[in-house]
Amino acid sequence: MIRPAAEGDVPEIVAMIHELAAFENLSDHVKITEEDLFSVLFGPEAMAFDFVIDEVGGDGQRGGGLVGHALWYRTFSTFLGRTGIWLEDLYVRPEHRRQGYGSLLLAHLRGLTGGRLEWDVLEWNEPAIDLYQRLGARPMAGWTRYRWFDG
Amino acid sequence: MIRPAAEGDVPEIVAMIHELAAFENLSDHVKITEEDLFSVLFGPEAMAFDFVIDEVGGDGQRGGGLVGHALWYRTFSTFLGRTGIWLEDLYVRPEHRRQGYGSLLLAHLRGLTGGRLEWDVLEWNEPAIDLYQRLGARPMAGWTRYRWFDG
Repeated sequence: MIRPAAEGDVPEIVAMIHELAAFENLSDHVKITEEDLFSVLFGPEAMAFDFVIDEVGGDGQRGGGLVGHALWYRTFSTFLGRTGIWLEDLYVRPEHRRQGYGSLLLAHLRGLTGGRLEWDVLEWNEPAIDLYQRLGARPMAGWTRYRWFDG
Repeated sequence: MIRPAAEGDVPEIVAMIHELAAFENLSDHVKITEEDLFSVLFGPEAMAFDFVIDEVGGDGQRGGGLVGHALWYRTFSTFLGRTGIWLEDLYVRPEHRRQGYGSLLLAHLRGLTGGRLEWDVLEWNEPAIDLYQRLGARPMAGWTRYRWFDG
């Protein structure tokens, strides 16, 4: 049920980016266009990847859309000397939550890398934090992230 | 004085990775080899970049080695819809500190991206934090980073 995103998924993935931002009370920050996402996933300078979960009916046909997705890109640790994965967005639509799709996407990504799999979670997002803890992921302590950006 | 790392810089960059880890009291975590760094900077699946600062004498000739370096890779923000930069290592050797080299490397990277420039700092590294604050960079509050990794 997990497959790499196809070009035709771009509008629905952008919709899910907006849905996640709304859940995070950050809708004002969303500026991405379908062209932006197409470019970073499928353009000549593509550097990000996306896995989607398709809704499949009892007849094996695709149903009403995508269940969720995971958008990620590669990282590199100078300490480990190997690449890892940054999970930029992990999203499961509300009507499909608590059925294991989030774990499935995380386990799939973890299987792809022999290095670190890392992501951010909002401090108040307890259902997500509970899931990450159950899976055995651990919060990083002792570091502060800095950002320098005018836009 | 800032230039992209060349293949011949690999041993000295690995040495600086070890020096940074020692400064951070994290030497036990360093596993990178020269082959690892060569591969990620210059191999067929290269995805990281490095800028070095050369020590240049009054005669314009290269002096005793590298002053410092910045190792980075590209990021993508689903909210902004654009790529940015993750600064994995920023390092200036002790004898060259407080001369503006760190700011120079940061400003150079910032000029490369119309998106976010981000990095991590250890909470106790006050000289670095003072510099980042003076430049106008800001700590990210409200998010927790999770890591899932057995290695």
